Amino acid sequence: MSEPIISEQGAQKKAKRRSAKAGLPPGTLVYIGARKTDHVRLTLIQYRDGFFKQQELKTIDEFLTIYTATESDVMTWLDIGGLHDVQLIEQIGTACQLHPLLLEDIVNTEQRPKREDYDSLLYVVVKMLCLGATRTEILAEQVSLVMGERLLLSFQENGTDVWAPIRDRLRTGKGRIAASGMDYLLYSLVDAVVDNYFAVLEFIGEQLEQIEDRLLTAPTPDSLRDLHVLKREMLFVRRATWPLREVLSGLGRGDSRLMTESTRLYMRDVYDHTVQVIDTLETLRETVAEMLDLYLSSMSNRVAAVMKVLTIITTIFMPLSFIAGVYGMNFRHMPGLDSRWGYPVVVACMVAIGLLMIVLFRKKRWL
Amino acid sequence: MSEPIISEQGAQKKAKRRSAKAGLPPGTLVYIGARKTDHVRLTLIQYRDGFFKQQELKTIDEFLTIYTATESDVMTWLDIGGLHDVQLIEQIGTACQLHPLLLEDIVNTEQRPKREDYDSLLYVVVKMLCLGATRTEILAEQVSLVMGERLLLSFQENGTDVWAPIRDRLRTGKGRIAASGMDYLLYSLVDAVVDNYFAVLEFIGEQLEQIEDRLLTAPTPDSLRDLHVLKREMLFVRRATWPLREVLSGLGRGDSRLMTESTRLYMRDVYDHTVQVIDTLETLRETVAEMLDLYLSSMSNRVAAVMKVLTIITTIFMPLSFIAGVYGMNFRHMPGLDSRWGYPVVVACMVAIGLLMIVLFRKKRWL
Amino acid sequence: MSEPIISEQGAQKKAKRRSAKAGLPPGTLVYIGARKTDHVRLTLIQYRDGFFKQQELKTIDEFLTIYTATESDVMTWLDIGGLHDVQLIEQIGTACQLHPLLLEDIVNTEQRPKREDYDSLLYVVVKMLCLGATRTEILAEQVSLVMGERLLLSFQENGTDVWAPIRDRLRTGKGRIAASGMDYLLYSLVDAVVDNYFAVLEFIGEQLEQIEDRLLTAPTPDSLRDLHVLKREMLFVRRATWPLREVLSGLGRGDSRLMTESTRLYMRDVYDHTVQVIDTLETLRETVAEMLDLYLSSMSNRVAAVMKVLTIITTIFMPLSFIAGVYGMNFRHMPGLDSRWGYPVVVACMVAIGLLMIVLFRKKRWL
Amino acid sequence: MSEPIISEQGAQKKAKRRSAKAGLPPGTLVYIGARKTDHVRLTLIQYRDGFFKQQELKTIDEFLTIYTATESDVMTWLDIGGLHDVQLIEQIGTACQLHPLLLEDIVNTEQRPKREDYDSLLYVVVKMLCLGATRTEILAEQVSLVMGERLLLSFQENGTDVWAPIRDRLRTGKGRIAASGMDYLLYSLVDAVVDNYFAVLEFIGEQLEQIEDRLLTAPTPDSLRDLHVLKREMLFVRRATWPLREVLSGLGRGDSRLMTESTRLYMRDVYDHTVQVIDTLETLRETVAEMLDLYLSSMSNRVAAVMKVLTIITTIFMPLSFIAGVYGMNFRHMPGLDSRWGYPVVVACMVAIGLLMIVLFRKKRWL
Amino acid sequence: MSEPIISEQGAQKKAKRRSAKAGLPPGTLVYIGARKTDHVRLTLIQYRDGFFKQQELKTIDEFLTIYTATESDVMTWLDIGGLHDVQLIEQIGTACQLHPLLLEDIVNTEQRPKREDYDSLLYVVVKMLCLGATRTEILAEQVSLVMGERLLLSFQENGTDVWAPIRDRLRTGKGRIAASGMDYLLYSLVDAVVDNYFAVLEFIGEQLEQIEDRLLTAPTPDSLRDLHVLKREMLFVRRATWPLREVLSGLGRGDSRLMTESTRLYMRDVYDHTVQVIDTLETLRETVAEMLDLYLSSMSNRVAAVMKVLTIITTIFMPLSFIAGVYGMNFRHMPGLDSRWGYPVVVACMVAIGLLMIVLFRKKRWL
Repeated sequence: MSEPIISEQGAQKKAKRRSAKAGLPPGTLVYIGARKTDHVRLTLIQYRDGFFKQQELKTIDEFLTIYTATESDVMTWLDIGGLHDVQLIEQIGTACQLHPLLLEDIVNTEQRPKREDYDSLLYVVVKMLCLGATRTEILAEQVSLVMGERLLLSFQENGTDVWAPIRDRLRTGKGRIAASGMDYLLYSLVDAVVDNYFAVLEFIGEQLEQIEDRLLTAPTPDSLRDLHVLKREMLFVRRATWPLREVLSGLGRGDSRLMTESTRLYMRDVYDHTVQVIDTLETLRETVAEMLDLYLSSMSNRVAAVMKVLTIITTIFMPLSFIAGVYGMNFRHMPGLDSRWGYPVVVACMVAIGLLMIVLFRKKRWL
Repeated sequence: MSEPIISEQGAQKKAKRRSAKAGLPPGTLVYIGARKTDHVRLTLIQYRDGFFKQQELKTIDEFLTIYTATESDVMTWLDIGGLHDVQLIEQIGTACQLHPLLLEDIVNTEQRPKREDYDSLLYVVVKMLCLGATRTEILAEQVSLVMGERLLLSFQENGTDVWAPIRDRLRTGKGRIAASGMDYLLYSLVDAVVDNYFAVLEFIGEQLEQIEDRLLTAPTPDSLRDLHVLKREMLFVRRATWPLREVLSGLGRGDSRLMTESTRLYMRDVYDHTVQVIDTLETLRETVAEMLDLYLSSMSNRVAAVMKVLTIITTIFMPLSFIAGVYGMNFRHMPGLDSRWGYPVVVACMVAIGLLMIVLFRKKRWL
Repeated sequence: MSEPIISEQGAQKKAKRRSAKAGLPPGTLVYIGARKTDHVRLTLIQYRDGFFKQQELKTIDEFLTIYTATESDVMTWLDIGGLHDVQLIEQIGTACQLHPLLLEDIVNTEQRPKREDYDSLLYVVVKMLCLGATRTEILAEQVSLVMGERLLLSFQENGTDVWAPIRDRLRTGKGRIAASGMDYLLYSLVDAVVDNYFAVLEFIGEQLEQIEDRLLTAPTPDSLRDLHVLKREMLFVRRATWPLREVLSGLGRGDSRLMTESTRLYMRDVYDHTVQVIDTLETLRETVAEMLDLYLSSMSNRVAAVMKVLTIITTIFMPLSFIAGVYGMNFRHMPGLDSRWGYPVVVACMVAIGLLMIVLFRKKRWL
Repeated sequence: MSEPIISEQGAQKKAKRRSAKAGLPPGTLVYIGARKTDHVRLTLIQYRDGFFKQQELKTIDEFLTIYTATESDVMTWLDIGGLHDVQLIEQIGTACQLHPLLLEDIVNTEQRPKREDYDSLLYVVVKMLCLGATRTEILAEQVSLVMGERLLLSFQENGTDVWAPIRDRLRTGKGRIAASGMDYLLYSLVDAVVDNYFAVLEFIGEQLEQIEDRLLTAPTPDSLRDLHVLKREMLFVRRATWPLREVLSGLGRGDSRLMTESTRLYMRDVYDHTVQVIDTLETLRETVAEMLDLYLSSMSNRVAAVMKVLTIITTIFMPLSFIAGVYGMNFRHMPGLDSRWGYPVVVACMVAIGLLMIVLFRKKRWL
Repeated sequence: MSEPIISEQGAQKKAKRRSAKAGLPPGTLVYIGARKTDHVRLTLIQYRDGFFKQQELKTIDEFLTIYTATESDVMTWLDIGGLHDVQLIEQIGTACQLHPLLLEDIVNTEQRPKREDYDSLLYVVVKMLCLGATRTEILAEQVSLVMGERLLLSFQENGTDVWAPIRDRLRTGKGRIAASGMDYLLYSLVDAVVDNYFAVLEFIGEQLEQIEDRLLTAPTPDSLRDLHVLKREMLFVRRATWPLREVLSGLGRGDSRLMTESTRLYMRDVYDHTVQVIDTLETLRETVAEMLDLYLSSMSNRVAAVMKVLTIITTIFMPLSFIAGVYGMNFRHMPGLDSRWGYPVVVACMVAIGLLMIVLFRKKRWL
């Protein structure tokens, strides 16, 4: 099994980077994470029922010029791909009047999924998990969504694009999405992220099946290691899903003023999907636990099998060797040594004893 | 043990199919699951106290014609057997004005049991578990129940019919059912589903007893595998029951406007049955855990027994072989070799040592 | 240890019988359980301060005649011993206007302890556990108590009489009981049931001590099996006690109109006893877990001990046998073979090596 | 390790004694427990700011006489040492108008720590744990505190006096205690009891350290048994502390009318101490679990070490013995037997093989 | 691995010191803990927007003189470094009118993190964890923060200074801090403490990686011990973090009058960090658990490997030695002994049998 690499590495690595922030005043933007893309991509989409426009921007000023000139019934979605350019993030923050702590959270890519209500904004952090192009690794990145009444900002760490279908739907004007408000777009983005979790679970499930096959045919210590790698991946998915569940539960209940009643129904639907992901995850965890059991028991069965062979060999040959040893003693006066039939009789006895042992082992089901 | 096949397979399989939905707009109907029946069966039952009529329909139009012509005090129950014909489901949705998300849930057969309140509708999802005709496998399918004031739609994946007794009671007008409203029919359907859980538990219990018998007489690694199969089945039942418990608790408490007070009492009764199922399940789980313990301990006892044999053989024959070896040395001057009694005395010593060992082992309770 | 038999057997058995009900309309009375007594016993007790009358009745009509003629300040307690006569139960139900579901619960002897409030009735189910006459088995049966304002019905599965002291107190008029209302009688009955739990725990504790003694002196696989039997018994007591705790907590809090304030104080007292039972049970469970640990560790100590013997024997005799083997080679030119001192020197060497080994093992504390 | 004896023995013993009460009417006083002191000690203390008087009483009448003659601003504390004289307890109950159930709880020394509010009384049960005079055993007894507006009754099982410092403070009038009300005295008594828990934890911690030392140097099965003894002691402390926490939380929150606001602050302080005790206990529990792990792993390391010795010996000597055996065969025509160099060459080969083996084992780190 | 020493040692040590307080009246100040610094350092900082003054004080009188002369819009922060001088603490208590219990809590350095609201004061206890200068040990100390409207007292056990950056920010007037109230300073201090937790986690994570490397290359019992040391450290961090989470949750929710709304937002941010610490900790715990699994399984793999070698050697040489033994018997009439080809044939047979065995083992994958 090629060890799948989750881009956002294990806990040790994280803590290391995180400690770089100690001592800095709150609101200082420090990008914690590897630089995942060279160039920060700014994609601006504006839409209304029957209207759609997509542009790649270069600077924040460009965005400001366009945004201030936008009619009030047009929805604006700015997708920022890449978080390492801290100055740019700060410019966006100033332009859109975001709270310093909110900006700090956006670039701190080790956030747990969470929701925060600012006065006229809704801030949602989710973890995007998807399979790489070769389908042999799980890509993980943090996605921050900031929603206002007419504006939605989405911050990604790099360019994994799971939102292409949503842009298509906006462009073609199919479905409810183009005719709905900002909250429905937020729902669609989160829904697309959660939908990809199923693909990741499927990937983990496939690997689990492969390991299971190997465990049943030829258990090796490597299988154990692979199981532990899988376990960590599942732990990672779990940590992404559990807090998300609460976030979605809150959005579905309607704690926020910015969510309309009809979108809440859809949010509850994503919530149901998250619960389904958690359920599947728990089942996978149980399966992994069972496999560990199976592995350990098959290992100890192997030891038992080796023991049996050892015991059988010893039990058969020790008495025979002893008899040979007895007739190898150099006493002058030993009955039978001079007899013609001495040797054949003793050898016959040996064969008989050997066979007897084998019959005994058969009976005890050791052979 | 013939491995019982739960029709709705393990978690890995599910996730795979589920991921096919990624990228599609919400409300898109995709039937996730194997096509379990060729032909979608539409059974229409209409009843009132003293009146009963059952028809097999071909199309939804037929249903609409009949339904609109129905008197207002007649109860209508449409049972849809088969979910793969997505267009038909959509037609039903349009005819009965069902929410797109509700329809999506109906065909997504990996739903957890849940309840949802739409304005004038109550939507309940339960998992039907029953034994196959040969009583060697557990059949699982998702059942969706949509209840209005005078209409109840029941969606099944295939044709397992556990509701025949209810139709009989409606036909004969026996019991409260014919004279009661839609909510009592809903109760009866759920009750019939839960009643079948007991048969499934009984089946699992029987298999557990068989495994236990084998464990006590001749424990093999296969027993372990069978236990794990049982464990998964129990996990499956558990996942069907736990959320159902909450659904029924809510219906019994009376959160819904569509449930009458008297039916709530009955709902609380089904709730009690569900708790009983969970209780039995927990007991079975404890039993499985105990058996795993027993298996492991009997396995390690076997190893210990093998060790003992090995040690006994070694301990008896090593000293004897050594003595034989000593008298097999080729020194010219060795006392006793030329003596007449040398050989008998040494052999006697050997026998004595061997017997002493055996006595010692007896004392130590190794023999 | 004679395996204690809990009359109401394990979970598998139960589910089997329970599934017989599938398909029957709710309210159909099916007695689930073994027929534990031939004849249904009807004991009528009527009392008031200073007045006491006990009669054995034959029919329900007899009861009705007496009951309707009873003065309004006389308390009536009808004790029904035996549930298999479903018709009789139905007659009682009709006579006392009990809800069909309540009757169904009474004969369904696999109920969990629970409380239900009907309009003018309080329905309580508890599990009676007591030791058999020979004090070697635990008897279990379901007890249903239906309390009205002036009437209390108690349903037992068979004739285990733990309520004799209460009847005595009623007869002699000692204590508060005769002067109090129906609710105090209910309390007294439940209190008597809970008091017997302590005897059962004591019985389990004694058996645990016996097993512990055997584990410390001569651990056998049988001890393990006995421990598991005990564990199941404790699980059974646990399942009887935990729900009871909630029932009593509710009665003590005073959710029910039929409980007077002063009796609630007594109910809280029984509640405390139940908590004490649960506490003791948890302690016993911990003890069982410890013993399993001890058993496993003593088992593996045994294997280790066997290993040591094996290793010691091998380590001492292998080198000695090798030396003997060397001098048993048939080379013509071997130094020492012809010498007078060859044999004694070699034997002395052997003895020295053997002693050295023993000293070494002493040092390593293997001997 | 001398097994520390907790006076109030394990669960089995308790249940036995407790079952003696079955069948008795509620409110019947049965002293459950060993008779821990011969003579019931009645110590009366009366105090007010600047006034203190301590008397040993003989009878309850004496107390009544004094108490009724007491001025209304004098606080009265009656400490009863010994509970076996049930009649005396009953007299106190009558004199102070205590509820029969309260009296029953006082003599039932297997109560869990709890609090009960009677109309004008507050009843608190705590477990006193302290070290014996020799500091080698943990003494446990139940302490019941009944507090009225001007009267506090404290019931102890025997004479362990942890309250001497409090009496001293009352006598000398130091601190807040003499000038405060009954509730502050209650606080002081409970505080003194909880303070002693730390000494008990310290004792357990010391023993744990001793066992750890032994485990690291010479692990024996006895260490395991000692660990289990410690575990039971900790379980005992735990059962005394957890319910106490809730009791104190309630008193600190101010559910009771008899607690003044300022004393509640102090109660919250004892509550903090209890939480600290629980914390320490949990840490100790983790330590015990770790030691069990260490023990088991060191045990299995020992087995592995023994195995290695066995394998090394076998692997070195078996091939050598085989070579010796080959040259011990009696074939007439064997090359080398007659040669002058046969013997030395073969012996040299043997030595070479032996050394090779040792080098190999060194490489594999077995030596 | 050099065992990292957490200054505040394990639970046993603590309890010992704590028990010294038994019997003393509440409010008696007893410093529990090692004397960590010789001299008590008193650092006074006074600031306002644009104004900053830092002084080292000698006595409390000095402080009082300055404080009373301070203008009402100047914030005062007194940092007390060292708690062993109980008299000084008492003087501060008197000067600032602190409750005796509060003072007791300050010097009792085994407090759990907690928050307490006194009338005009907010009292917060946190555990400061940081790495020592050599980055090889974790330093732990208790920090008590007492906040009034214009005054903040911070009590440290010794001089670990994690607050230098905050003083710098105050001095330079950078950020919000100088312009904000006391509550923002409180937030900054707590934030600095929590930020250091990440460094500690990073340290633990690094050690974990080192142990993991060693486990994969050469597992020794020492690795196990190191894992347990790490586990204790993590337990320690956990005990510092969990209660802190609740403290911060309360401060973020705004239970306290002294916290302004804007600072609460920041408090929720620290709360998020604490949750992140807990998350990382749980991941580390899972990793440790996995490593224990890996260690145990690699250990048992070693035993299995040893067993295999033993069995292979035995299985190959026992039959060969037996054959040699047979031809070493001294029968006069044995076929082949006198033959020229006897010896070569037998040796060839032996070699053949040996090779056969090896082939067999290859097939069984034992070689």
